[in-house]
Amino acid sequence: MVSRPKGEPVAENFQLAEAEIADPQAGEVLVRNEYISVDPYMRGRMNDVKSYVPAFELGKAMTGGAVGRVVQSNEPTLPVGTYVMSMFGWREAFVAPAVALQRVDACLAPPSAFLGTLGVTGMTAWVGLFKVAALKDGEAVFVSGGAGAVGSIACQLAKLHGCRVIASAGAADKIAFLKDELKVDYAFNYRDGEPVEHLKQGAPGGIDVYFDNTGGPQLEAALSAMRERGRIAMCGAIAGYCTPVPGPRNLPLVIGKRLRVEGYIVSDHFRDLPLFLAEAAPALKAGKLVNRETVVAGLDNAPEAFVSLLRSGDGHIGKMVVKVD
Amino acid sequence: MVSRPKGEPVAENFQLAEAEIADPQAGEVLVRNEYISVDPYMRGRMNDVKSYVPAFELGKAMTGGAVGRVVQSNEPTLPVGTYVMSMFGWREAFVAPAVALQRVDACLAPPSAFLGTLGVTGMTAWVGLFKVAALKDGEAVFVSGGAGAVGSIACQLAKLHGCRVIASAGAADKIAFLKDELKVDYAFNYRDGEPVEHLKQGAPGGIDVYFDNTGGPQLEAALSAMRERGRIAMCGAIAGYCTPVPGPRNLPLVIGKRLRVEGYIVSDHFRDLPLFLAEAAPALKAGKLVNRETVVAGLDNAPEAFVSLLRSGDGHIGKMVVKVD
Repeated sequence: MVSRPKGEPVAENFQLAEAEIADPQAGEVLVRNEYISVDPYMRGRMNDVKSYVPAFELGKAMTGGAVGRVVQSNEPTLPVGTYVMSMFGWREAFVAPAVALQRVDACLAPPSAFLGTLGVTGMTAWVGLFKVAALKDGEAVFVSGGAGAVGSIACQLAKLHGCRVIASAGAADKIAFLKDELKVDYAFNYRDGEPVEHLKQGAPGGIDVYFDNTGGPQLEAALSAMRERGRIAMCGAIAGYCTPVPGPRNLPLVIGKRLRVEGYIVSDHFRDLPLFLAEAAPALKAGKLVNRETVVAGLDNAPEAFVSLLRSGDGHIGKMVVKVD
Repeated sequence: MVSRPKGEPVAENFQLAEAEIADPQAGEVLVRNEYISVDPYMRGRMNDVKSYVPAFELGKAMTGGAVGRVVQSNEPTLPVGTYVMSMFGWREAFVAPAVALQRVDACLAPPSAFLGTLGVTGMTAWVGLFKVAALKDGEAVFVSGGAGAVGSIACQLAKLHGCRVIASAGAADKIAFLKDELKVDYAFNYRDGEPVEHLKQGAPGGIDVYFDNTGGPQLEAALSAMRERGRIAMCGAIAGYCTPVPGPRNLPLVIGKRLRVEGYIVSDHFRDLPLFLAEAAPALKAGKLVNRETVVAGLDNAPEAFVSLLRSGDGHIGKMVVKVD
């Protein structure tokens, strides 16, 4: 990253750079990335403000999830060929100590799935639904950004639990994906009509849980549609990442409806990774979870991929990953 | 109530009316009220909309808390002279079955205290602080509407638990009351300067708990001032009861700070009344809780009292009660 965006990021905020990589020392390995993750939360880190994670530094590589293979090893527990997940982000290769890497089981799923359904993305959906919102089997749940990386897993996990799922997105191909592939009960384009009317149609009895990826007008609609004792898991607020949006005018409904609104950061819950994988890995292997991806080829295209990710109308569906050539 | 207010209520929304009262039947008593309660939540019930409690009916008496004495009894467990709390509201006297009444111990405190510190008002403060917001000894808590009925008890209960208390109000005499009588650590007039700057001064390390009586700009300021893993108990939203106010633009802070925002209705928690009284009654008797009241004389002045209650600048402090002559 060479400059900080104002509003929507542009490709010019980034620059491809070359750097020397030293040989791995004792306990270290050289990893060649195969896939890197681009995620909406990265937009927040591009601002120079204090947040739950430090801001990205100018002149440094964007950090974030990546999966790759050990190509040179000075650490017996990670022999050459091992697949590992790391958080070093947008780079072709890097040297790191074993402790900074997480081995992934390439027999379980293709490597990129460890950035999506079986990775931080899938865990984010699982934590929000079950740990934060305490979703119970058979309840009605609304997922905004339902065709996105986290949203598409949230929709599917909720369906696996027998829930009624209402999902929104911002493009026709995403709505089709939600209906035809994820089999949600009701899908709508949030720019087409009033979200609150869609929610009435999709869940005439009201919604028990709102999985919020967007904030903005959809949060306001969800507050109106919530049933008593409903729960809102605040996962993201993409509607306001680039430009400010008004707050929900009906927030006092939280009182009379006894709602709980709770924000979370997935990394606080990493100790539950085994619990999550115990549910998600067999489901993926059995074909009950679709690991839908939008794959962009070439590290040099990562900036364009990221810029497009933050534009709701663009045709990215599911988890966006960049395949490093 | 003879008409529904638009915006602020006016005295003309009410009318004094006379009605015959039948003699108490078996199991019933005739109660003469001594004090009736006027509360901000009543404004919501004057609208003809579905809410957690039904709307008040036109042409009927306003219901709500009242305390009085049995003056004629056809029920052995409630002899003449017994003090009872009821929810029949704005009337001089009424007949009711024993099951609709709650006996109060007049040795513990003056009768009106059972509408305030030892009644639903005090219980509302206690539930919000300890059951909803899970306030821990020594934390920093901000109470908006701190000089009001619920707020003044919340401030005192928090001080009794060794907390740092920051409180706001809308008039100079209320600020003086907060500082001089309730001994809060920092008090400010929310119309005097930016609330967020006051919160920085009052709690330089941030606030752990926000007890929200107002919503509006103070909620937005509180979100900015919250520490990580802070809790907001939404008790009331008086800022928007008469005229709509914008929602908090910074609500997405809930995510990064892992905040929990939760609304509640005190009646859901009545089973815990003994727990609450076990804390509040000895504290009141020992002089560690001040039951500050604004007493308005005469049932015919109840409408004016209520209208004034909803105007922040007016000089009502603590619990507002109407003394029935």
